[in-house]
Amino acid sequence: MKYSYLENRELNEAVFTYIEYLTKECRPLGVETIEVTHANQRITARAVKAKRSAPHYYAAAMDGIATVAAKTYQASETTPIRLVLNEDYVVVDTGDPIDPKFDTVIMVEDLIQTEDAEVVIMTAVAPYSNIRQIGEDVCEEEILVPSNTLIRPSVMGALLAGGVTRVEVYKKIRVGLIPTGDEVVPFTTDPKPGDVLEFNSTIFKGMLEEWGCEANVYPIVPDQIELLENALKHAVEECDLVLVNAGSSAGRDDYTSTILRNLGNVFLHGIAIKPGKPTLLGSVKGIPVIGIPGYPVSGILVLEYVVKPVLGSMRHLAFEAYPTLEAVLSRRILSGLKYEEFIRVKLGFVEGKWIATPLNRGAGVVTSFMKADGILRIPMNTEGLEAGSIVQVERRVPIEMIQNTLVSIGSHDPLVDVIGDHLRRNHPDLYLSSSHVGSMGGIMAMRRHEAHLTTIHLLDETDGSYNVSYLEKYLPNEDLVLIRGVKRTQGLMVAKGNPKNIQGVQDLERTDVRYVNRQKGSGTRILLDYLLKKENIDPDVIYGYDREEFTHLSVAVQIAQGSGDCGMGITSAAKIYGLDFIPICEEDYDIVTRRTMLENPKMIAFLDVLRSESFQTELTAMGGYRIDHIGELIFI
Amino acid sequence: MKYSYLENRELNEAVFTYIEYLTKECRPLGVETIEVTHANQRITARAVKAKRSAPHYYAAAMDGIATVAAKTYQASETTPIRLVLNEDYVVVDTGDPIDPKFDTVIMVEDLIQTEDAEVVIMTAVAPYSNIRQIGEDVCEEEILVPSNTLIRPSVMGALLAGGVTRVEVYKKIRVGLIPTGDEVVPFTTDPKPGDVLEFNSTIFKGMLEEWGCEANVYPIVPDQIELLENALKHAVEECDLVLVNAGSSAGRDDYTSTILRNLGNVFLHGIAIKPGKPTLLGSVKGIPVIGIPGYPVSGILVLEYVVKPVLGSMRHLAFEAYPTLEAVLSRRILSGLKYEEFIRVKLGFVEGKWIATPLNRGAGVVTSFMKADGILRIPMNTEGLEAGSIVQVERRVPIEMIQNTLVSIGSHDPLVDVIGDHLRRNHPDLYLSSSHVGSMGGIMAMRRHEAHLTTIHLLDETDGSYNVSYLEKYLPNEDLVLIRGVKRTQGLMVAKGNPKNIQGVQDLERTDVRYVNRQKGSGTRILLDYLLKKENIDPDVIYGYDREEFTHLSVAVQIAQGSGDCGMGITSAAKIYGLDFIPICEEDYDIVTRRTMLENPKMIAFLDVLRSESFQTELTAMGGYRIDHIGELIFI
Repeated sequence: MKYSYLENRELNEAVFTYIEYLTKECRPLGVETIEVTHANQRITARAVKAKRSAPHYYAAAMDGIATVAAKTYQASETTPIRLVLNEDYVVVDTGDPIDPKFDTVIMVEDLIQTEDAEVVIMTAVAPYSNIRQIGEDVCEEEILVPSNTLIRPSVMGALLAGGVTRVEVYKKIRVGLIPTGDEVVPFTTDPKPGDVLEFNSTIFKGMLEEWGCEANVYPIVPDQIELLENALKHAVEECDLVLVNAGSSAGRDDYTSTILRNLGNVFLHGIAIKPGKPTLLGSVKGIPVIGIPGYPVSGILVLEYVVKPVLGSMRHLAFEAYPTLEAVLSRRILSGLKYEEFIRVKLGFVEGKWIATPLNRGAGVVTSFMKADGILRIPMNTEGLEAGSIVQVERRVPIEMIQNTLVSIGSHDPLVDVIGDHLRRNHPDLYLSSSHVGSMGGIMAMRRHEAHLTTIHLLDETDGSYNVSYLEKYLPNEDLVLIRGVKRTQGLMVAKGNPKNIQGVQDLERTDVRYVNRQKGSGTRILLDYLLKKENIDPDVIYGYDREEFTHLSVAVQIAQGSGDCGMGITSAAKIYGLDFIPICEEDYDIVTRRTMLENPKMIAFLDVLRSESFQTELTAMGGYRIDHIGELIFI
Repeated sequence: MKYSYLENRELNEAVFTYIEYLTKECRPLGVETIEVTHANQRITARAVKAKRSAPHYYAAAMDGIATVAAKTYQASETTPIRLVLNEDYVVVDTGDPIDPKFDTVIMVEDLIQTEDAEVVIMTAVAPYSNIRQIGEDVCEEEILVPSNTLIRPSVMGALLAGGVTRVEVYKKIRVGLIPTGDEVVPFTTDPKPGDVLEFNSTIFKGMLEEWGCEANVYPIVPDQIELLENALKHAVEECDLVLVNAGSSAGRDDYTSTILRNLGNVFLHGIAIKPGKPTLLGSVKGIPVIGIPGYPVSGILVLEYVVKPVLGSMRHLAFEAYPTLEAVLSRRILSGLKYEEFIRVKLGFVEGKWIATPLNRGAGVVTSFMKADGILRIPMNTEGLEAGSIVQVERRVPIEMIQNTLVSIGSHDPLVDVIGDHLRRNHPDLYLSSSHVGSMGGIMAMRRHEAHLTTIHLLDETDGSYNVSYLEKYLPNEDLVLIRGVKRTQGLMVAKGNPKNIQGVQDLERTDVRYVNRQKGSGTRILLDYLLKKENIDPDVIYGYDREEFTHLSVAVQIAQGSGDCGMGITSAAKIYGLDFIPICEEDYDIVTRRTMLENPKMIAFLDVLRSESFQTELTAMGGYRIDHIGELIFI
């Protein structure tokens, strides 16, 4: 048995009881007095009382004259009263201080100027009319800001207005990050096979700083008990909270729980979340110590759902919850009964509906977190969710960003990423989200109204035509537009110099040729199968036929790395990795959208890019594309 | 005519056309290459391509053995195959690199160990099974991040994973802040009457830094053309955008538009917003220059609604819009047809309804921005909104903060602020919001279901009792609870030493006594009127009877500052300012809530505070309170 026993505590309970434990066992956060001008985003450690009233003087609230109300009491239309400058009044503008010998202001509109130094009034005024009182904004000694309050810029203004220039706040929480593991190397290293680049602490540091903490990143500690003990002893001296990264799995190399038991206490090991289960909660010498799983996605989630509430408790102010968005789930998700599962999703706004599409679930795939627009939490004791379910997604990006995103689901070509980049450059308010599910996947997404557009290259074997017949078959009775894209060359990508002398698909039968295939439903796979049929080759004899990659680039990279000898793909992918290329045929890679989208500003911008000289120049430089008809519309 | 002509351009149009103007006239933001580890919250200036695939090696995706798929092809239940350690396979754990001579991994579950150095398998495996491919996360040369993309911690992780350690980003926008005005003095000054403390730049700097800018605050410039010209010339050399504060009103001291015309261009002067109308938009030597009105609230709003979109355009990425919340407006608001008006509101969540209550509209009242939970925008050409209207409020605080806030509307006593502070200390997840509208105002708020609780001290003249008869009259057929508060002493607050020898309400008739009154509907006003009636004093003869303050403290502060001789109030208020106090009577200051609230965790926490020793100790120290029955419940 490789794994030691882990608990499986429900998330909320784990966090709640851990915070209770810390409140008893750990020292409270220190307090310091700092300049108000440096206090933005800090938290008051006690109530702050005003030291001065604001305004601190009587000021005219109107333009006019300052006078004594008693002198006006007899004034009326029939008995006007004459006031003499300097004797009875002075002229004031809004904001001017009022001499204490006066007690009211008469508006300029209510005055009749008879001589230069004389006015006449016809209405009595009450004392303290049109005067901005002392303390209208702040009264000396009132509680301006209570304890445990976030200081925002407007709070800083109110404090300074109230004569408070220094304020007592909690110290920033110093969080120590200890990366561990024999295989872990600094990200500046040129890594050998088996090396794992240490970039988690950069991610974590960024998150912690956004949460108002200071983060100390310690050097990587190899898997040796005494080294890790020393590092942890040192960190708890310097920090208010210590995170040990990659130190919480219960596998063969896990020393952290042992060390925590030696130096302090293990409160809990194992939370019922996926990813993130082997999280370790404990303390050493009054300092909370948390073991964070090594995979970046697990780590990020444990920071958000475990560490952040702990920090909130330490700083006496919870963090704002993630906003939620109700969306339709585009695909079925299976989930384990024993865990709460955190699924990263892309969000799209298509035809008035919010759509959530799950991303790669691998905990090691850091780009899945970068690409995620939100997190879908699937509770424990749930086997999963059906496609079409209404779900609450915890949103991580602005809602207008989702609204301003053109959703493309379809076949991959590197040119899609280039379009996305040009869209960002020319229309910084718009975004392109592209998912690579192959041409047939794209057509199905259009059928389900989950995408604004799809990209396809589908050969009709019956007549050698491309794309249109598939649309007629799979999207009948729809007002579609085919936006002509590129003619691109498909061929066999082989290592530089073509060491295995591969000349065509017939060579794929050879036992010394390792093929790298694309996924079912991709246009490239359909093309291969068509070519194999024509040549009467049984797919089962091809070594690697079942090895599926999702993009041209990922096929090419396997060949470049020597783990495959040959794969079908496009010129530009081969060119990126310096591979040799055996052209086989030219195909139409087109874009399909609904006719109604042509008036949508996002689609107008997309077409602008497609037809722009700068995009076409970049495309041509990539190689293997003919763009004679790019951007032309064919109504279907 | 004191004011020069101002335009009245609609806000969106003003901002949109100004940005168009700047795009043509101003230099684009510079670019710099920085470490990815320092790039959080920066924006990519161009597409970033991966320099390395991630993972960069083949790794076992399962625990088991690495072998060659071809060796397994004949394996079946009837024809098991024997593999020999080191010759045919090696043992691998998840994550271990795979030697290039192997091409597949067989899971430990599918192996039968016959001898130490031998395993038997009964199923054929395909090549590249259970292998984590090179580039699963990132493919070398793919576009990892497009142009004009916000770098978040997860993006930093993806960049480092892709071998990118430096990234080209836009420089931070340097914003110059020039405070101007003869009357403006540094906030560190002990201000004389007429001085205006300069704290706007602290507020603005905080806001600008939150928006990712650097802010240079320049020294205060007096109202002299040549000084301001020099300051502006200097600032446009050093900054990407310059804000001149208090330099945009069109009044007698306004030089900014003249100077802007001398040194560069005025694009627009006057936007149809309130507050913020005299905003000035222009440029000097390719640098945008914006004149910001001097009042803090106007300035904050102009920063949020004018400057922020300009910054978004400069950095090629719009800022996230403020989230909105649909709420019921608690009071009628009048608004001018010619402006879009920005009303600061408090938000409450009472009995399942979101309620928006307008705050003080004075543009000089900076605390109103601190207290605001959101901004209600009233469009142009609207005369106002009726109480009960459904409105969209731009929320400025977390929604759960509003949900966790106990809404108290009623009579003021400093002890309410102390309760609020103790609530924050003992229950950092809870908040108390208190509005001071007087006892009758509180009862009306309860009637309209806008408050969780009210605080009242209402004398029943018929029998000298307090509070209960008012509840029976104004809140009949309601299940109410009266939470007993304090007995507090009301009396006349007079200057220290009682220089005018005031002994009781009969002295208020004296012409040398200036009275400071409370607002209609406040319990203290009702008490005064009762006392006057008893003494047969005509309110009209009291000098200052119409001078209304909203809290005990603001009455006391006027007397302390010498602008009034006498006001009715409570012991603790007099004590704060060292005033003399002539006790008149003792009254019951109680709390009223609905019976259903007693099970609400917020109310439970409130009662905890009321009954806590630490609160009662602080209350006793404030003076003038008897607390024998505090926290007792009387069901009505």
